[in-house]
Amino acid sequence: MSVVRVALLGLGTVGSAVGTRLLNSPYPFVLTQVFDRSVARKREAFDPHGKIVWTSRIDDVLHGDADIVVEAIGGVEPAAEWIRQALLHGKSVVTANKQVVARHGAELWALAARQGRQFRFEAAVGGAMPIVRAISEGLAGDHITRLVAILNGTTNAVLSRMDAGGVTLPQALEEARAKGFAEADPSADLDGDDARAKLAILCALAFGIRVGADDIPAQTAATVTQADFEHARAGGTTVRQLARAEYDRSRAALTAWVAPVAVARDSVFGRATGATNAAVITGEHAGDIVISGAGAGGGPTAVAIISDIAAIARDRAAVVPPPRLTSEFSVRKHVTRGLSHSFTSILAEAV
Amino acid sequence: MSVVRVALLGLGTVGSAVGTRLLNSPYPFVLTQVFDRSVARKREAFDPHGKIVWTSRIDDVLHGDADIVVEAIGGVEPAAEWIRQALLHGKSVVTANKQVVARHGAELWALAARQGRQFRFEAAVGGAMPIVRAISEGLAGDHITRLVAILNGTTNAVLSRMDAGGVTLPQALEEARAKGFAEADPSADLDGDDARAKLAILCALAFGIRVGADDIPAQTAATVTQADFEHARAGGTTVRQLARAEYDRSRAALTAWVAPVAVARDSVFGRATGATNAAVITGEHAGDIVISGAGAGGGPTAVAIISDIAAIARDRAAVVPPPRLTSEFSVRKHVTRGLSHSFTSILAEAV
Repeated sequence: MSVVRVALLGLGTVGSAVGTRLLNSPYPFVLTQVFDRSVARKREAFDPHGKIVWTSRIDDVLHGDADIVVEAIGGVEPAAEWIRQALLHGKSVVTANKQVVARHGAELWALAARQGRQFRFEAAVGGAMPIVRAISEGLAGDHITRLVAILNGTTNAVLSRMDAGGVTLPQALEEARAKGFAEADPSADLDGDDARAKLAILCALAFGIRVGADDIPAQTAATVTQADFEHARAGGTTVRQLARAEYDRSRAALTAWVAPVAVARDSVFGRATGATNAAVITGEHAGDIVISGAGAGGGPTAVAIISDIAAIARDRAAVVPPPRLTSEFSVRKHVTRGLSHSFTSILAEAV
Repeated sequence: MSVVRVALLGLGTVGSAVGTRLLNSPYPFVLTQVFDRSVARKREAFDPHGKIVWTSRIDDVLHGDADIVVEAIGGVEPAAEWIRQALLHGKSVVTANKQVVARHGAELWALAARQGRQFRFEAAVGGAMPIVRAISEGLAGDHITRLVAILNGTTNAVLSRMDAGGVTLPQALEEARAKGFAEADPSADLDGDDARAKLAILCALAFGIRVGADDIPAQTAATVTQADFEHARAGGTTVRQLARAEYDRSRAALTAWVAPVAVARDSVFGRATGATNAAVITGEHAGDIVISGAGAGGGPTAVAIISDIAAIARDRAAVVPPPRLTSEFSVRKHVTRGLSHSFTSILAEAV
């Protein structure tokens, strides 16, 4: 594994967890830069020995020495543009930003490939549960036909708490907030926006199709009451926010939605409590693959990000100085001399 | 993804499933060679148009045009030696052979790295359940402390059938044989040899330590009776063959075993029936990650193998002509001219 220099954009819950892990990493990963808008306030606690370059100017990172940029600022813009710029400046990028990946993933992935760099986003879906790899690599040899999953840890924590504790939704939400599982404004979680962005990413990976997150129908979980749980219980079920997608290749027809639905109590979904995420991935040849794990929190999310950094560090071609494409002629000349193979692949995509 | 030529060693249950998938693959994978000792008998059914080179001489494969050799003959020798030879001849290798990986995995992996080739074995553990990737890549960013798993599909099919059907172990075994889940001689499954080879592989990946499969204590499941199930049932449990490993880094102490044990009925293990495999992987930061799926059968195993082929096809450096190491001097000369980066990595490991 090569030594890699990492720049960190953002020092919130996820960014801080990643930074702490990098400072104590057994791997040859070096945190060289931190971009944060409130530099002065966080600097002393995080970097008492002054080994890191701190900045509030993105250009310092783009022109800096980092091999990998970890984007942990969240939101669509400027995050998407900064990821694009980082790739254009020859850096590989790791992000936990599901909104950016759902909206711009295909474009950023293509740009990374053209640059001979990597764009990785395991942390954007499922926290520590390695579902992005399971679908795009582990089950690459199958035709995936269906995905059913709990993808929002906050909503699952709220619904499972309502079920177990008999409390109202606002009470359960207050408890989740106290545990750090819920935002001040939980509407993106309860309404399904978070889950449908993640489902759109999984559809792209599993079915090879492009789906707009906003085009996936969603029904809010904010209106679930104890009466719904009582009704569910009578039928041996409970209530969970599920994200579901089924793709019929022969008709090129996708059915996808996010909604609170009744699930069997003893199913993998009924048994998922707290901020757990869980998924059943159905393949034509493999049958059902089940995967579950912590779906939220700085620690689990940092595991996914550090794993992505490790994957890039193993790919030497993604951490060496970027090739410079000057003119078609000079590139061809290099290729005829028989230089590196990643060079020829870039040519193939550039011409 | 590059076009890759695949040679297949062995045309048993797994080999046939892989071959059939390759012949009908939407990927740019071409099955160019089949090595099988009973060539004449299988040839017509499998290759009516005569597009594949059939051989019963391993040298034809070693000197053939394949980029990737899929080893599906099983057993330790000559499989291990042929994998070694294939890597030395500049081919990447994919195998489902847990005994070879448990005994020679570290050496073969190092050889593959030195050759700039890949050695992949997702199918050696857990069938279609992508646990090798989950541990070695998806959770690379964590410190794994514990593995608990059902790793033998045959034994799980037998034990879960005894539990559900009240039949004796020999009766359950007969049914498993009829379904193709059990060998004529099931002792490697029931006695735990199969599971401890797989556990040894997972220990190497998860803890970075080398464990001899034969050094892992095992207790046979062949003596489990209905009385054991009745006893278990009274305590709310059932009986499963578990493989368990826990590593204490501070003391460098590994505790590992394979045995039939009582597990809670509503646990992920108690709920695993038939030839299912399941695992709970515990990480210091990620907590528990659960993964389960079909643990046996040609179809699921072929998914893991095709996924490994796809991973190699994505790594262009592993499918281009192999570099030739002549003398230290000439290699150094190449490096100073600034040739390919995989070349410098080979040098670093060679000198």
